[in-house]
Amino acid sequence: MDGMNDSGAAMDLGMSARVRPLVAAVRAMIADEIAPLDAEYHAEVGRHPSGDRFRLTDRQREIIDGLKAEAKARGLWNLWLTDSARGGGLTTVDYAYLAEEMGKVPLAAEVFNCNAPDTGNMEVLERYGAEWMKARWLAPLLAGEIRSAYVMSEPGVASSDAAQLAFAARRDGDGFVLNGEKHWISGAGDPRCAVYILLACTDPEADKHARHTMFALDADMPGIEVVRPMTVFGADDAPHGHMHLRFTDVRVPAENVILGEGRGFEVAQGRLGPGRIHHCMRAIGQAEKALALMCRRGTERTAFGKPLAELGANYDIVANARMEIEMARLLCLKAAWVMDTEGTRAAAPWISQIKVVAPLMAGRVIDEAIQMHGGSGISQDFELARMWTHVRTLRFADGPDAVHRRQVARAELKAQRGAGD
Amino acid sequence: MDGMNDSGAAMDLGMSARVRPLVAAVRAMIADEIAPLDAEYHAEVGRHPSGDRFRLTDRQREIIDGLKAEAKARGLWNLWLTDSARGGGLTTVDYAYLAEEMGKVPLAAEVFNCNAPDTGNMEVLERYGAEWMKARWLAPLLAGEIRSAYVMSEPGVASSDAAQLAFAARRDGDGFVLNGEKHWISGAGDPRCAVYILLACTDPEADKHARHTMFALDADMPGIEVVRPMTVFGADDAPHGHMHLRFTDVRVPAENVILGEGRGFEVAQGRLGPGRIHHCMRAIGQAEKALALMCRRGTERTAFGKPLAELGANYDIVANARMEIEMARLLCLKAAWVMDTEGTRAAAPWISQIKVVAPLMAGRVIDEAIQMHGGSGISQDFELARMWTHVRTLRFADGPDAVHRRQVARAELKAQRGAGD
Amino acid sequence: MDGMNDSGAAMDLGMSARVRPLVAAVRAMIADEIAPLDAEYHAEVGRHPSGDRFRLTDRQREIIDGLKAEAKARGLWNLWLTDSARGGGLTTVDYAYLAEEMGKVPLAAEVFNCNAPDTGNMEVLERYGAEWMKARWLAPLLAGEIRSAYVMSEPGVASSDAAQLAFAARRDGDGFVLNGEKHWISGAGDPRCAVYILLACTDPEADKHARHTMFALDADMPGIEVVRPMTVFGADDAPHGHMHLRFTDVRVPAENVILGEGRGFEVAQGRLGPGRIHHCMRAIGQAEKALALMCRRGTERTAFGKPLAELGANYDIVANARMEIEMARLLCLKAAWVMDTEGTRAAAPWISQIKVVAPLMAGRVIDEAIQMHGGSGISQDFELARMWTHVRTLRFADGPDAVHRRQVARAELKAQRGAGD
Amino acid sequence: MDGMNDSGAAMDLGMSARVRPLVAAVRAMIADEIAPLDAEYHAEVGRHPSGDRFRLTDRQREIIDGLKAEAKARGLWNLWLTDSARGGGLTTVDYAYLAEEMGKVPLAAEVFNCNAPDTGNMEVLERYGAEWMKARWLAPLLAGEIRSAYVMSEPGVASSDAAQLAFAARRDGDGFVLNGEKHWISGAGDPRCAVYILLACTDPEADKHARHTMFALDADMPGIEVVRPMTVFGADDAPHGHMHLRFTDVRVPAENVILGEGRGFEVAQGRLGPGRIHHCMRAIGQAEKALALMCRRGTERTAFGKPLAELGANYDIVANARMEIEMARLLCLKAAWVMDTEGTRAAAPWISQIKVVAPLMAGRVIDEAIQMHGGSGISQDFELARMWTHVRTLRFADGPDAVHRRQVARAELKAQRGAGD
Repeated sequence: MDGMNDSGAAMDLGMSARVRPLVAAVRAMIADEIAPLDAEYHAEVGRHPSGDRFRLTDRQREIIDGLKAEAKARGLWNLWLTDSARGGGLTTVDYAYLAEEMGKVPLAAEVFNCNAPDTGNMEVLERYGAEWMKARWLAPLLAGEIRSAYVMSEPGVASSDAAQLAFAARRDGDGFVLNGEKHWISGAGDPRCAVYILLACTDPEADKHARHTMFALDADMPGIEVVRPMTVFGADDAPHGHMHLRFTDVRVPAENVILGEGRGFEVAQGRLGPGRIHHCMRAIGQAEKALALMCRRGTERTAFGKPLAELGANYDIVANARMEIEMARLLCLKAAWVMDTEGTRAAAPWISQIKVVAPLMAGRVIDEAIQMHGGSGISQDFELARMWTHVRTLRFADGPDAVHRRQVARAELKAQRGAGD
Repeated sequence: MDGMNDSGAAMDLGMSARVRPLVAAVRAMIADEIAPLDAEYHAEVGRHPSGDRFRLTDRQREIIDGLKAEAKARGLWNLWLTDSARGGGLTTVDYAYLAEEMGKVPLAAEVFNCNAPDTGNMEVLERYGAEWMKARWLAPLLAGEIRSAYVMSEPGVASSDAAQLAFAARRDGDGFVLNGEKHWISGAGDPRCAVYILLACTDPEADKHARHTMFALDADMPGIEVVRPMTVFGADDAPHGHMHLRFTDVRVPAENVILGEGRGFEVAQGRLGPGRIHHCMRAIGQAEKALALMCRRGTERTAFGKPLAELGANYDIVANARMEIEMARLLCLKAAWVMDTEGTRAAAPWISQIKVVAPLMAGRVIDEAIQMHGGSGISQDFELARMWTHVRTLRFADGPDAVHRRQVARAELKAQRGAGD
Repeated sequence: MDGMNDSGAAMDLGMSARVRPLVAAVRAMIADEIAPLDAEYHAEVGRHPSGDRFRLTDRQREIIDGLKAEAKARGLWNLWLTDSARGGGLTTVDYAYLAEEMGKVPLAAEVFNCNAPDTGNMEVLERYGAEWMKARWLAPLLAGEIRSAYVMSEPGVASSDAAQLAFAARRDGDGFVLNGEKHWISGAGDPRCAVYILLACTDPEADKHARHTMFALDADMPGIEVVRPMTVFGADDAPHGHMHLRFTDVRVPAENVILGEGRGFEVAQGRLGPGRIHHCMRAIGQAEKALALMCRRGTERTAFGKPLAELGANYDIVANARMEIEMARLLCLKAAWVMDTEGTRAAAPWISQIKVVAPLMAGRVIDEAIQMHGGSGISQDFELARMWTHVRTLRFADGPDAVHRRQVARAELKAQRGAGD
Repeated sequence: MDGMNDSGAAMDLGMSARVRPLVAAVRAMIADEIAPLDAEYHAEVGRHPSGDRFRLTDRQREIIDGLKAEAKARGLWNLWLTDSARGGGLTTVDYAYLAEEMGKVPLAAEVFNCNAPDTGNMEVLERYGAEWMKARWLAPLLAGEIRSAYVMSEPGVASSDAAQLAFAARRDGDGFVLNGEKHWISGAGDPRCAVYILLACTDPEADKHARHTMFALDADMPGIEVVRPMTVFGADDAPHGHMHLRFTDVRVPAENVILGEGRGFEVAQGRLGPGRIHHCMRAIGQAEKALALMCRRGTERTAFGKPLAELGANYDIVANARMEIEMARLLCLKAAWVMDTEGTRAAAPWISQIKVVAPLMAGRVIDEAIQMHGGSGISQDFELARMWTHVRTLRFADGPDAVHRRQVARAELKAQRGAGD
């Protein structure tokens, strides 16, 4: 943890020659194809004849399917799939630069089939899934035909919280019976969501790391109920959604177990890293966008006879935003590099660092951009309000800041004790 | 500005014997009558048969009218009206304690006829309005039968902003013709909103303080168009609303001028003070509520085998919230006391101080309360998300933080130069 | 803790008619008599023929004795002694305003016989001391003829710290034998320091609140050794000093016990409050002085063709300083008022609040003033560097911030539980 | 400025195979040879028989000369000299890792002949100096036999400040006559300081970039007076010193001009970059050391029955320190890399970023380490107090934070305007 990495590998955090043309291509497609349709896509929410905000209108399907086809045609598809024969041969560092770009427009990640939680779920199926699971769910996920959700409770976090408790999985003959309830299942609102990856407690008496089992199951199994959408500062994020789910005696065959009974923790650990890096880099993309909006506003608007940028503390605000973005990006890239060169386990404290740093930083930059826009900044006339609420949720998603700080501190204290020997 | 006040009056910032029973009564009525109906009232939004979110349902009218009648019956009506024969004989310091209580539940201020922008508008009519204006608008406002909006552009603030430009008022025979557009007219969405108090530029060539004129006019005059509701982090705050208005050749008789042509700035200055103090004290009420929620969560939830409050930095977070609230409240009370003892003009830099301090403080405390609640904190299951977005808007309302800091600094530098002589 | 005080007393935090002329008189004497000699007094340190920085030169004696005589002559003597027949009849709130003034020049508090740790020690002797103790030590202390030190270990704070461990007092015949070592005994360097008030552990097996005993003893008893001066950012603060003391078999008669064996905690509690309020108000005086220096520099210096104050974020820096000072002062005054109206015990959490808030605030304001002065700010040409290091020490003195935050949080959580019933 | 670098070079910010053994060797020599003598060396200050703190004692000469000889013998000499045939073939990135190590012990940089301001001055002589200058001053500087100072006024910064005004150089026959006064000439206290590199204004009427001329001159020329040492929070930093110099009619031959009359700005610009990066990396070394001390204290001390590290917010404090250090280091390394690959001019806004970020960050980390140590943290028993005051001065040295933030903001706004085309 002392800033020196002990791998022999060069710590190249720059944009490689390999990824440079992809970054340009992704930027171009976002600017030319996706951004112009993004507002229309989101304005369609709620216009389905049924009035159901979680059903797609014909126009929505037309937009999203058209864009996906275009992304495939341009070879900008599944680029997140690093370290795999099925992927594009990119490193995590490479992909981080792409994720940053995709963070700038809400629809972009899905268009390139790079959106959460699908990437993490595909990764689980790719690494640990049985062949039949790959055929049934991984193939259409990789093709962008279905979507998925991840139903997990962080073991040990706020464990008295009924809504966060691990699902209980009881052995029953050749399978399991699942019961439980969970509040924030992102993506489960989407009508195309066909598969759940689910962590359940199969043996509460077992050793801490052997209590849980990971399952893959169809999203429409009997006994599964979507209770309601949770809202995020009032927004339901339809059609994606963050759903409150309830499982009542859902019977799952034993073959739906991923990797093996009691090995859920192992699967979950393997899943954690890359997705968090992607989240953080998308947050950095949002911060860059907010800074660009701040600079534009500061240059175009005048007050007291001067461009806004030259008034009061605004130079300091712009400078601080630039410095904070640079530092957070470099830390994310370093975490990605540790992941690439030393693996998930070694990268864990680095990922905890960026999980704390990147969303907080992006929140501050967007907040300052809002303030520079006056009332417009929180209105529908700019994307800043939506960006702010989005990055605010990242301070809980995949573990709250406090838990990650705790991880960083424990790693540090352990490393320092070692250094003192 | 050196913390010593030169009036001979005792700086009693405590709750007076006079207001103490009123605070108790307001608390009781909020707890017993208003809070239980608040959620139902807001859930009714959008249920009008027309689908129009800015029309009240029968149930909404029943709730609000019933509560108002009850407030009147309990003698808890128009308590904001300090320094007036029509009021309850309270000082601004007294009323500040009541405003704090009313800040804790969204519907409360309106129930007690103490809500913005009506109080400020009533104050304008009370102090400067012609008798016919008092009969036509002040009387029903004081009775809680109609509502009002304030249509103002802060002169000199972001003056290139088309949406914020002063309305242009052109002399035309015996009256004026108004043209202009403005984005954030709070309360103009309410179907009961019957009167606008409006600042317009009547003579752009005149001396800076004689350019503007204040008008009172019916809200339904020909040529007035409600273009759309502005949203606040996605919320339209219906039925109150923050409306985008457009005035096209609206003809207003000369008798609708308040106080006199070219005296708009004088009227506006007189209006500013108390309303800002009320806003700040309601923000402090929200911070207190957030702290209470934070403490409850910290006590009731456990993680890693301990109450949440005892984990990590949570003691520090609770302590900092308490200290910040206390200090901001005392500063608001001092500003109120300066207003009571030395008047609006002397209170101006104090009010600028609290306009910066109170919303920022409340935002921090609510943000920490959200974080302590995990995902629930931003969901519909707690009021924290709504509270946060509300106090965030206060950092623009009545002038952005930067403008108020500038006012404070100029007053300070001037005072210090004087002190140095 | 909810901002409402339940005493019936008016919360008058202003400068009373009683104290107003005293504030003016103290200001005048500081400006006219003390400030002009302060630098000379401190420049004398180290000029004693012996080279001993902890001995006073003739000129130092002449300065300090002359100023004290003048203060007595003007009736500005022992004003800190509130709530006592020997004092001037001031309240703690009254005296707080005087302490603020005295904070602005290092020598001032001693000149008015209002300096720590003497005031706290005099208070102990006044309230709990035997008549012979009052004759031997209180009388000359009140006369400003001798000085004193306070030798205490905060029970339970960093208790494994050898340097902070309570002195061990072993019963031996009719008296006690003291052994121990302590690092930061402020004032023990002064050659006039004649008496120690000392807390020692007399019964480690007793109940937590009955373990300690308070002693008064001559500073020159056999077995007492001044090991070295501790330095504060390199400064030894001579001649006052923060001394490292060692006690080796120091025999103290039983009559030197204050109040009674095992009642040390009770005495210590009674001592805590007022002194901390004085420290905080003096820190606020320093912040006011730093703000005044900041404003002067900002007005007199120019860069890029403008007064410094108008550049970059400087308006914001001035405004923030003013707002932070106001809030911290009001909180200190409220703590003083709770002490006056409800006593030390009720005031404890309020005092913990200001112990955290005031030194941190003063440190920030002084730091910004330093930055506004460029390199001069940390040099001998301004007092800012000395002021900064002084307020920095207050974040440990009388308990570190973390311990006080903990106290505030525990009081808050307890109050909120009560409120929830 | 958008985080993507357009050079084709790989952005390798890691420790290269080239520098890795050097880092190990420098660490070892610091730990084994320098650290054990550092305290003794500094304790010798003031022990010269003359009592002059700015003269070296025999023991000081023995220590420093012995260590320098050892460093040379180990091949750890002049490693800062990148991009030069005389140097060790390191890049700025490489050397940054070494500077970090040297920052951890005060004496280290001088021992390796890598101390400011000598490195910057040697760079000036190496790049722009005449051959006779190289023979007279560069050779003994590279050999570590003499030392140097840099006498500059930042043109345009606080230009009304008499002490910071450029020296005036008046043509007089074949040479110049220098007059002026300057406050903070670091290193000019050292008795070995033999040469000044000095910027003077030779033509106040010329174009802004042609007004100044750089001179090299012997430090003992007639007319040069060392008025006094400036103090830094009370410390004179003897024997190095930050001296107040006065030049009265100092006659300098024309041949002492570096590069050419009117080209002083060009020379100064070339000098700025690397030295600032070294300062920042040494600050990061100090932050790392403070974090190590913090962790040790947190582990070894207990309070309330637990290791300090586990109490209150201490995990968060440790984690925040780690995260802040990592980010600041990566930003420094990136600035170094831009310097290596694109040159000084391109690196300027990056260097402004780190000049703001690194000292502020180090100050925060050291402050928290101090707080974790209680009173000991500011005493002579730990190095923390000295470290803190040192990094505090860096917020003025080579331009105050505000000026660097302004540079960053202007570069950003310019880049964004370009991006928007």
